[in-house]
Amino acid sequence: MKNSFGNSVAVTLFGESHGAQIGIVIDGLAPGIEIDHDFISSQLSLRRPHGSISTSRREADEYSIVSGVFEGKTTGTPVCILIPNCDTRSNDYASTRSLARPGHADYTANCKYHGFEDYRGGGHFSGRITAPLVAAGAIAIGALAQKGIHIGTHIKKCAGICDRSFDDINDDISALSTMDFAVLDSDAANRMKDAIVAAAKDGDSVGGVLETAITGVDAGVGEPWFDSVESQLAHILFSVPAIKGVEFGLGFDFSDKKGSEANDAFCMANGKVVTATNNNGGINGGITNGMPIVFSCAVKPTPSIYKTQNTVDFINEVDAQLSLSGRHDPAIIHRARVVVDSVSSLVLCDMLAMRYGTDWLRG
Amino acid sequence: MKNSFGNSVAVTLFGESHGAQIGIVIDGLAPGIEIDHDFISSQLSLRRPHGSISTSRREADEYSIVSGVFEGKTTGTPVCILIPNCDTRSNDYASTRSLARPGHADYTANCKYHGFEDYRGGGHFSGRITAPLVAAGAIAIGALAQKGIHIGTHIKKCAGICDRSFDDINDDISALSTMDFAVLDSDAANRMKDAIVAAAKDGDSVGGVLETAITGVDAGVGEPWFDSVESQLAHILFSVPAIKGVEFGLGFDFSDKKGSEANDAFCMANGKVVTATNNNGGINGGITNGMPIVFSCAVKPTPSIYKTQNTVDFINEVDAQLSLSGRHDPAIIHRARVVVDSVSSLVLCDMLAMRYGTDWLRG
Amino acid sequence: MKNSFGNSVAVTLFGESHGAQIGIVIDGLAPGIEIDHDFISSQLSLRRPHGSISTSRREADEYSIVSGVFEGKTTGTPVCILIPNCDTRSNDYASTRSLARPGHADYTANCKYHGFEDYRGGGHFSGRITAPLVAAGAIAIGALAQKGIHIGTHIKKCAGICDRSFDDINDDISALSTMDFAVLDSDAANRMKDAIVAAAKDGDSVGGVLETAITGVDAGVGEPWFDSVESQLAHILFSVPAIKGVEFGLGFDFSDKKGSEANDAFCMANGKVVTATNNNGGINGGITNGMPIVFSCAVKPTPSIYKTQNTVDFINEVDAQLSLSGRHDPAIIHRARVVVDSVSSLVLCDMLAMRYGTDWLRG
Amino acid sequence: MKNSFGNSVAVTLFGESHGAQIGIVIDGLAPGIEIDHDFISSQLSLRRPHGSISTSRREADEYSIVSGVFEGKTTGTPVCILIPNCDTRSNDYASTRSLARPGHADYTANCKYHGFEDYRGGGHFSGRITAPLVAAGAIAIGALAQKGIHIGTHIKKCAGICDRSFDDINDDISALSTMDFAVLDSDAANRMKDAIVAAAKDGDSVGGVLETAITGVDAGVGEPWFDSVESQLAHILFSVPAIKGVEFGLGFDFSDKKGSEANDAFCMANGKVVTATNNNGGINGGITNGMPIVFSCAVKPTPSIYKTQNTVDFINEVDAQLSLSGRHDPAIIHRARVVVDSVSSLVLCDMLAMRYGTDWLRG
Repeated sequence: MKNSFGNSVAVTLFGESHGAQIGIVIDGLAPGIEIDHDFISSQLSLRRPHGSISTSRREADEYSIVSGVFEGKTTGTPVCILIPNCDTRSNDYASTRSLARPGHADYTANCKYHGFEDYRGGGHFSGRITAPLVAAGAIAIGALAQKGIHIGTHIKKCAGICDRSFDDINDDISALSTMDFAVLDSDAANRMKDAIVAAAKDGDSVGGVLETAITGVDAGVGEPWFDSVESQLAHILFSVPAIKGVEFGLGFDFSDKKGSEANDAFCMANGKVVTATNNNGGINGGITNGMPIVFSCAVKPTPSIYKTQNTVDFINEVDAQLSLSGRHDPAIIHRARVVVDSVSSLVLCDMLAMRYGTDWLRG
Repeated sequence: MKNSFGNSVAVTLFGESHGAQIGIVIDGLAPGIEIDHDFISSQLSLRRPHGSISTSRREADEYSIVSGVFEGKTTGTPVCILIPNCDTRSNDYASTRSLARPGHADYTANCKYHGFEDYRGGGHFSGRITAPLVAAGAIAIGALAQKGIHIGTHIKKCAGICDRSFDDINDDISALSTMDFAVLDSDAANRMKDAIVAAAKDGDSVGGVLETAITGVDAGVGEPWFDSVESQLAHILFSVPAIKGVEFGLGFDFSDKKGSEANDAFCMANGKVVTATNNNGGINGGITNGMPIVFSCAVKPTPSIYKTQNTVDFINEVDAQLSLSGRHDPAIIHRARVVVDSVSSLVLCDMLAMRYGTDWLRG
Repeated sequence: MKNSFGNSVAVTLFGESHGAQIGIVIDGLAPGIEIDHDFISSQLSLRRPHGSISTSRREADEYSIVSGVFEGKTTGTPVCILIPNCDTRSNDYASTRSLARPGHADYTANCKYHGFEDYRGGGHFSGRITAPLVAAGAIAIGALAQKGIHIGTHIKKCAGICDRSFDDINDDISALSTMDFAVLDSDAANRMKDAIVAAAKDGDSVGGVLETAITGVDAGVGEPWFDSVESQLAHILFSVPAIKGVEFGLGFDFSDKKGSEANDAFCMANGKVVTATNNNGGINGGITNGMPIVFSCAVKPTPSIYKTQNTVDFINEVDAQLSLSGRHDPAIIHRARVVVDSVSSLVLCDMLAMRYGTDWLRG
Repeated sequence: MKNSFGNSVAVTLFGESHGAQIGIVIDGLAPGIEIDHDFISSQLSLRRPHGSISTSRREADEYSIVSGVFEGKTTGTPVCILIPNCDTRSNDYASTRSLARPGHADYTANCKYHGFEDYRGGGHFSGRITAPLVAAGAIAIGALAQKGIHIGTHIKKCAGICDRSFDDINDDISALSTMDFAVLDSDAANRMKDAIVAAAKDGDSVGGVLETAITGVDAGVGEPWFDSVESQLAHILFSVPAIKGVEFGLGFDFSDKKGSEANDAFCMANGKVVTATNNNGGINGGITNGMPIVFSCAVKPTPSIYKTQNTVDFINEVDAQLSLSGRHDPAIIHRARVVVDSVSSLVLCDMLAMRYGTDWLRG
């Protein structure tokens, strides 16, 4: 299914950037999970644009949950979350309707939907549609935390500036959970923000790499072959707009290693099987080995920039130039990290429910 | 479903390294596709180990197609391909049954299957199970070629040595199709082989990066969000053992680019919309834009090495040392490339059948 | 997926009888399908209770479409339809919360959801949740009509009173489309209504059988085995509350026939292959043969009756008696027929999109 | 997926009546389930034709399990079962290749597969393909029995002759498990057999109704709406060739009942919630209520009869007459009952694994 994903716990996504409402249905959540509205709001706030490093479009994201929750807890039936679009300036888009923004989905949407697509603000392709994913993800993150499973993502690299690596992962996850700009090294954080502001002044944008860690998942979750943990995580991660690369553990750095350097030696620690290193990112043969699950995502620079660009008018089929108005982000990596946490947690709930049954996730 | 993947065209995989037979069912192929046994055999041969750069296990891979083909053509009903296991030395494994090979699935399989797994030679987790994927992929590759869609993969990097980039993609794909060792620059090829042989002598192994290009897919294929072309390709690519990273177009190199450098400007060429660069690897917003689809896969060094390694005896739960016997590859990247072509073609058949209907793929 | 159904065209259902909103997401509809609000409203009106033969709960069903429609036409992205609940009297249910209504889902919901279910008015199990299915079905029915495919359902039997059989199917479908109480023989209609009113006076309820015909589907749609037309239709039909039997063509009457009586002889008519009879209901081997698709559904009497019934208090685990208040239907068969048309049309859109591609359904 | 069914436990079916091999892949079975070859053989024997009431085609059904079983137990990875076709007389079919057998899939297969279908003996549409389903079902039935879940099917009606109803269901299931001709009343059994033999002499065939009971499933299994127990069972039951009707509990007899007669009163018995009657067949709101699951299937008379029939030559598009040779059954109902037990058990394993997790089914 196209806009649905998951088996036992599944999400269905809908909405357009300038439509009436955007939203999500989460099906298969265990009954009895407490809904923490403060946490949902704070997660949505992490995704929302702030200050000079983000677009000036300001949406309140006043979500409502219209089904599947009763007396403050999940019922076990589908949870539908709605978020209205309020701060839309649809007229910004009419004049450039047929000018394909380079790097964006305008042209491909037109090829696929034959001109019937809602083109305003990227329509269904807009990053705005990640807001309901974040609201849904907040419920998943909260439920997993009750079971001792924690997730955190930092900006490993932005505009060529690197953060420090994960150190004590649980401490780092805890620290990240309260950061607006998720960088572990505060000096690197400042330099990244400066670089984003500089790009914005230039009418340009920057990209980066996000790194995520998940702790507390027991060994034995996932499947060989098509439902490997890597396959399922990558499937949903590549759904997130602007993510163009996903790697687990050493990922592409494996290519320069020998087997003897890359293999994670097993050893006993406190009566438990662990590995001395975690180059495989907690996954062997598609299945969790009990170590933290670690992966990175490449986030491309926001395609909507203010610099004049060469493009085509795809309706008239002629070369053209595009000077964007509208409101756009000079970087989305700091906003994308909570999306990565959210989709990862949703797919993790699904894998755990498949393994342990539909009631397992109850608080 | 765990060992099945696809919607309109789907595969189901089964078998163990030392079981009686391994195989695959391909369902949903259009009727009337000609079966080219020479091509299937030659593709299987590309996957098979050869010479000093591969394991000494030698399987004839004498596949048989037991259903879904009648008078040399697909019927439209499920095609089951079987490959017997012949050259097995199962006793190689009994003595090390409870010693987890670092980097391999022995320990996680045990956690998941509670000791009931067939541990011999990696069982269902063995790279050997890719043989039926290659046989199935050969049918898909042949059918796509009839429709003007071509695929090719080269070893972009191995043991730190780099191949040249794709140049004229169609010429390169054509050249790669007849190469045993898929490297475009013959000098780089020789140096890579030397490095593999050197690692083998050392009882060690090497990894690398594969790069794949697909030409001839029209704009408009794929979906936004969960069924993006990236999501679907990554899902099946991460099923392939040893693949730990997948990136599209510039992938992780996007992180060092500005939007103005990264965006692919559209322009008209011969009355067709194309892009001046292809940093996005032929995909915008999850949907093909008509340019070649280009992606890379990180392949980790083979985890089964001869060097003595620290590990645990997971049955007795004690630290241990492992000195492997058995027959293992010092590199699998040269054998994996045909697997990548195969799984990519299978998922592409599925996406095209979803878009254009079940009869579209007919020759 | 639990509350989602379909492959290329799929629906996801959410909501509770006394929650804030109920709704549906339809994904995969071709772009460019015109939305006929009058038709959606009139279909919802057919489902809505009227007069003395229905519950006194009166919902306006003022639906809104919040995504997937732009300038009056489908965009190709998910269509979300919302319907608010207005006329709820939730207090009717609190006093009988732990008394299982015989024949209803109160007890099983409690077993499944451990007491977290929204019990008011049947919660997610309520027949009210069919309203969004009808709204979605109206779009499907309209799109199919543009392609020459028509559907109609009549009450074949109610309270032991039989309607006449289908005669000229296209004329009958046309006549049914404007009937509030879908019975072809007006005399039978009156007697059925009298029987419903009599049951209502008695605090009781009645059931019946619905018969559906679909014309205009070409031969060759559907699959052998698990995706047979019968399997897919039955799957979604058995989702409709109160449907406890589904049969195709002669169905259970096949059991008294010889093969020579039951087989539908093929013959040529106007250069087309047809069958002289249609005992198989237009389906052979799971695949359409070009004749009208004909099936019947058994609808059980509404379980919510006013007569005092023996039951249990499932929280205190003691025998109990139940005298229902609340507002309930003495029959739902006349309201269920538009639900049957709706779900059948939705699954038909899916089968056709799978066969002919995602663009086929365009008007 | 077309020839695959199930979520956590799934089957994939392949093969043709006169192809090399037919078979099935069962994925998702818990590890550690003991394989009882005697039981598999005896179940296959129940499906096999015997004596004068069946076709004279005699297949040994010497199945082999080529994957997913190690040291006599399931490993947890896909189990592939193969059955060779031995007693084929393919020439029986060449002369009537283009003559559509009334009631059979010859014409619809041709419409769907454009003439590329393997037409010999019904190809992929043949009832022979149920043999692997029975072998797979035997594993499922055995595993369920270990968990206290038992299934049995009797011929409720054949050629107009009725069996007695279920009485003590567990005793009846036990009695049925050893019967070749599954009729509870031995007098009725004899009369049914006589009727079948008489039909055979006449070159004709008969149909009937099968009734199935499943005991030992706890309350709370299944889902509201699209994954209701009825929906999932009906989906797979309608996959079985010749089944044209499915009803749960009273089914079509509900249409003549009042709510007060049809509702199953709850009561306490030995500290457990039960129902006084079981008109709903153990399912309320799509979810099991702990009572036996009871359903009936209408089986149409075998379409392949020896009497001369009117038909068309669909290649030359002219009217024609058909006098079948080949070997055919005068009734298949007595052979179909083990197929019904098998597919029902497979889908039940899936529902239970979804609810309780992948390890639940372990012996």
